[in-house]
Amino acid sequence: MTIKFETLADPKARETGNVLAPAFNADGLVTCVVTDADDGTVLMLAHMNEDALSLTLETGIAHFWSRSRKTLWKKGETSGNTIAVSDIRIDCDQDAIWIAGRIAGNGVACHTGKKSCFFRRITTTGNGKFDLKQVD
Amino acid sequence: MTIKFETLADPKARETGNVLAPAFNADGLVTCVVTDADDGTVLMLAHMNEDALSLTLETGIAHFWSRSRKTLWKKGETSGNTIAVSDIRIDCDQDAIWIAGRIAGNGVACHTGKKSCFFRRITTTGNGKFDLKQVD
Repeated sequence: MTIKFETLADPKARETGNVLAPAFNADGLVTCVVTDADDGTVLMLAHMNEDALSLTLETGIAHFWSRSRKTLWKKGETSGNTIAVSDIRIDCDQDAIWIAGRIAGNGVACHTGKKSCFFRRITTTGNGKFDLKQVD
Repeated sequence: MTIKFETLADPKARETGNVLAPAFNADGLVTCVVTDADDGTVLMLAHMNEDALSLTLETGIAHFWSRSRKTLWKKGETSGNTIAVSDIRIDCDQDAIWIAGRIAGNGVACHTGKKSCFFRRITTTGNGKFDLKQVD
């Protein structure tokens, strides 16, 4: 069942109060960052619509909206690498969610097989140019 | 000077290679998450256009694009709470940036005066409803 979220037009109420009133964008989405609850690694960035946020809150398992497939996406449904929510927070203007979670299965968040989607560091090559180096 | 970023149309090349080729969206933006380099707290989420990413890489100080003010935004220029980049990574599909950084000034990232924009936890009130509780 989808939660009926509140809407707060007043920025001050949205930013400082205790009412959950997600500011979904024109596409009906908020951004969600997922970190590893144990070591703080940023694992992935994804998006949630009302249904995805509802299901995440109701089940304790992270759900997203896949913008490419245009479908609700229970992360790890196929791979077994679901994300159990340890902590879930919302930012000041309520258009971004932070989940600290733990990945089931083989502990991998990225479809490339890496634990984190952020497995490449941007590094200078010394002449005003930059490339990427794998860090794990 | 703005860096001339590469473009990689092939998803596999973008996801696995060492070429920095940010996939700016239709608005010319990538999403950027900033964490505290010392304790891993997610501090804020913001957006970067080409100029903001260029300046961030060239100066080591985080720059963003303010979608509300429609202007380049050197975070902390007024408050003194600039963000020194300790580590900067890009995700698999190169449409998101992760900065681990350190905040100068009084160490506050959020315009509300909190260290992190994510200062409220989403908590259940026990009857299928949820509200927010300040955590710091």
